[in-house]
Amino acid sequence: LSTRLAHIPPTVFSEMSALAVRTGAINLGQGFPDVDGPASVIAAAEEALASGANQYAPGIGVPALRAAVARHQGRHYGLEVDPDREVVVTTGCTEAIAAALLGLVDPGDEVVVLEPYYDSYVAMLDMCGAVRRPVTLRAPDFRPDPEDLRAAVTSRTKAILLNTPHNPTGTVLTREELQLVANLAIEHDVLVLTDEVYEHLVFDDARSAEGHVPIATLPGMWERTLTLSSAGKSYSVTGWKVGWATGPAPLVQAVLAAKQWLTFTSGSPLQPAVAHALDHEPDWPRALARDLQQRRDLLCEGLTAAGLSPRVPEGTYFATTDVSHLGWADGRELCLALPERAGVVAIPTQGFYDDPEAGRQLVRWAFCKEPDVIRAGVRRLAEAD
Amino acid sequence: LSTRLAHIPPTVFSEMSALAVRTGAINLGQGFPDVDGPASVIAAAEEALASGANQYAPGIGVPALRAAVARHQGRHYGLEVDPDREVVVTTGCTEAIAAALLGLVDPGDEVVVLEPYYDSYVAMLDMCGAVRRPVTLRAPDFRPDPEDLRAAVTSRTKAILLNTPHNPTGTVLTREELQLVANLAIEHDVLVLTDEVYEHLVFDDARSAEGHVPIATLPGMWERTLTLSSAGKSYSVTGWKVGWATGPAPLVQAVLAAKQWLTFTSGSPLQPAVAHALDHEPDWPRALARDLQQRRDLLCEGLTAAGLSPRVPEGTYFATTDVSHLGWADGRELCLALPERAGVVAIPTQGFYDDPEAGRQLVRWAFCKEPDVIRAGVRRLAEAD
Ligand SMILES: CSCCC(=O)C(=O)O
Ligand SMILES: CSCCC(=O)C(=O)O
Repeated sequence: LSTRLAHIPPTVFSEMSALAVRTGAINLGQGFPDVDGPASVIAAAEEALASGANQYAPGIGVPALRAAVARHQGRHYGLEVDPDREVVVTTGCTEAIAAALLGLVDPGDEVVVLEPYYDSYVAMLDMCGAVRRPVTLRAPDFRPDPEDLRAAVTSRTKAILLNTPHNPTGTVLTREELQLVANLAIEHDVLVLTDEVYEHLVFDDARSAEGHVPIATLPGMWERTLTLSSAGKSYSVTGWKVGWATGPAPLVQAVLAAKQWLTFTSGSPLQPAVAHALDHEPDWPRALARDLQQRRDLLCEGLTAAGLSPRVPEGTYFATTDVSHLGWADGRELCLALPERAGVVAIPTQGFYDDPEAGRQLVRWAFCKEPDVIRAGVRRLAEAD
Repeated sequence: LSTRLAHIPPTVFSEMSALAVRTGAINLGQGFPDVDGPASVIAAAEEALASGANQYAPGIGVPALRAAVARHQGRHYGLEVDPDREVVVTTGCTEAIAAALLGLVDPGDEVVVLEPYYDSYVAMLDMCGAVRRPVTLRAPDFRPDPEDLRAAVTSRTKAILLNTPHNPTGTVLTREELQLVANLAIEHDVLVLTDEVYEHLVFDDARSAEGHVPIATLPGMWERTLTLSSAGKSYSVTGWKVGWATGPAPLVQAVLAAKQWLTFTSGSPLQPAVAHALDHEPDWPRALARDLQQRRDLLCEGLTAAGLSPRVPEGTYFATTDVSHLGWADGRELCLALPERAGVVAIPTQGFYDDPEAGRQLVRWAFCKEPDVIRAGVRRLAEAD
């Protein structure tokens, strides 16, 4: 193994999903739904396959999808996006993150990142030789501390890597919190890379009552922000891996410059289907969010009954609990024992902290599953010893 | 743009395909067929979409595809491959190359590579900080010189990056040439990474009458060889971007270690369809090769009639010509003028040489197109001034 990878552990999502398959446990770990997205979107992919969309798509993405992404940004957020220069299609948001960091961050550059962080952020920052400056979202509220933010962003900062709605905590950054990030970004002339894959999965009782605010919509921010998203979560097709980056042309070009060597292109027959989703099923993701809200409540009630007190999330698929309430000091140990003891799989989030102690006792539970699956899962937890 | 990318020009394939779209020229540039692969394979993808293969596939690939790849290696080459430890599915061969280099090559490591080289090799070697040691396949025969090979592989060599059948020259390495590479690899204890995406597209009048020989089948080579391939060329679905790497578990693990951060996974509904292709359409690629052989001859006769004398390829989709015979000293200048002067797009290969002078006058023409398209293309060339 190369030195750049030698110290990076494998992704916990693969590990835990493999554990679920091996043990037959209920998988409340990796974030994927057990019901597929809209029938018209599946049908559009079948149609694309049958009608010859099987050869290389342009590296930047098929024109119909880039146009649909631009319209989506206009419809939902009032952003005017040029589909030919300000959109690039990627192999899911994972490739968008990898390509954005490889394309924009040099060895030694400081990158401020919300902690706990999705594990690919850390791995790619490491592979780029970046210096990570975590701003910790602390239990029980998991909100960014303004002082921590101010201290982290300095003249050495190259970029701020945001994620809102935030995985794994379920925090949705408020306009006020985002305005502080924006002020700091402008003051120190830094880029913002923002992973917004859960942009539509926000609950209507969110403390941030205004819902999800893309930071690119704040004054002075479009020109320094690269916004990353994908169809996977919004349309329940996580395996299609069709994502995109939007932003000013130079930032989009940087993503393309890296991405052309990572995969060149992907998913030719899936790209037109995602265009169909964005154009013809614009309300589907919000309906999914309403549905998820009920499942969130089901999960959170069940976790509470099992002696865990979850932080009720404002968005995403996930709720986080402190398992020390059950007498487990180490969430990872619990998660490794859980399939046998309770027939359930969950995700320990300690690996998402620079200091493993900081998140040692935290475990994430997914509620993007059928209500009966969630009910069965929490029943098993309550009955386990 | 980051320093690691600042000096790498964009891929010539995107540039030239965009030029073809913009000018409406006949595209004999980028290597993709204008007729899709087997109907049963397209149908298998439709079936997978309809039957719920739409959520994350395991990062290593769906079990059915890994098993089919292992069987393919057994059926065609007599290799015994463990589908659970010696196969990883990637987003086309491009991602397999990127991940293999990121996973195995450290800054300063020397990598021997056949020149001219596919442009992603150079970009990824650069991004890894590798030192490139080209072995040039020289016109008019484009065969590796044994002395050049012996001089290139030394105690400083980390890996040899092969490509056979070779793009852009159409050379198929003979067993004898491969045996020399194998001897050097064993003698100096180096890895071999071999891109074999054109493994089935070999012509039966090849001077290498034995056809394509995977270097992994030579004695002592399995344990040091990572073989990369994909469904795109073999089954005429270049846009699906479903590829794989096979080899000993530690090398496959290194690919997975990098790939999990690049895309995590991709093409969930396409993976079962590629499994179907490998298992149920085993003879399709050879039938395609027979068909391509006629189109190769059509193209080569036409190029000859137009005053270009092509090197008749032994495999792949491509024929290379020396355009100085037409009075053009610079193939790139010709290719930029060609859409307007002749209504045809081709690929200048000078960018695939370390020394741009070495390939300055070389242009590559694709023959994976319908016979009428090839006829029209060469007629235009003959009629152009
Ligand atoms: C790419 S694997 C993880 C996907 C996901 O959204 C999660 O579980 O956090
Ligand atoms: C990934 S773009 C180029 C594909 C190809 O096979 C070629 O034209 O060389």
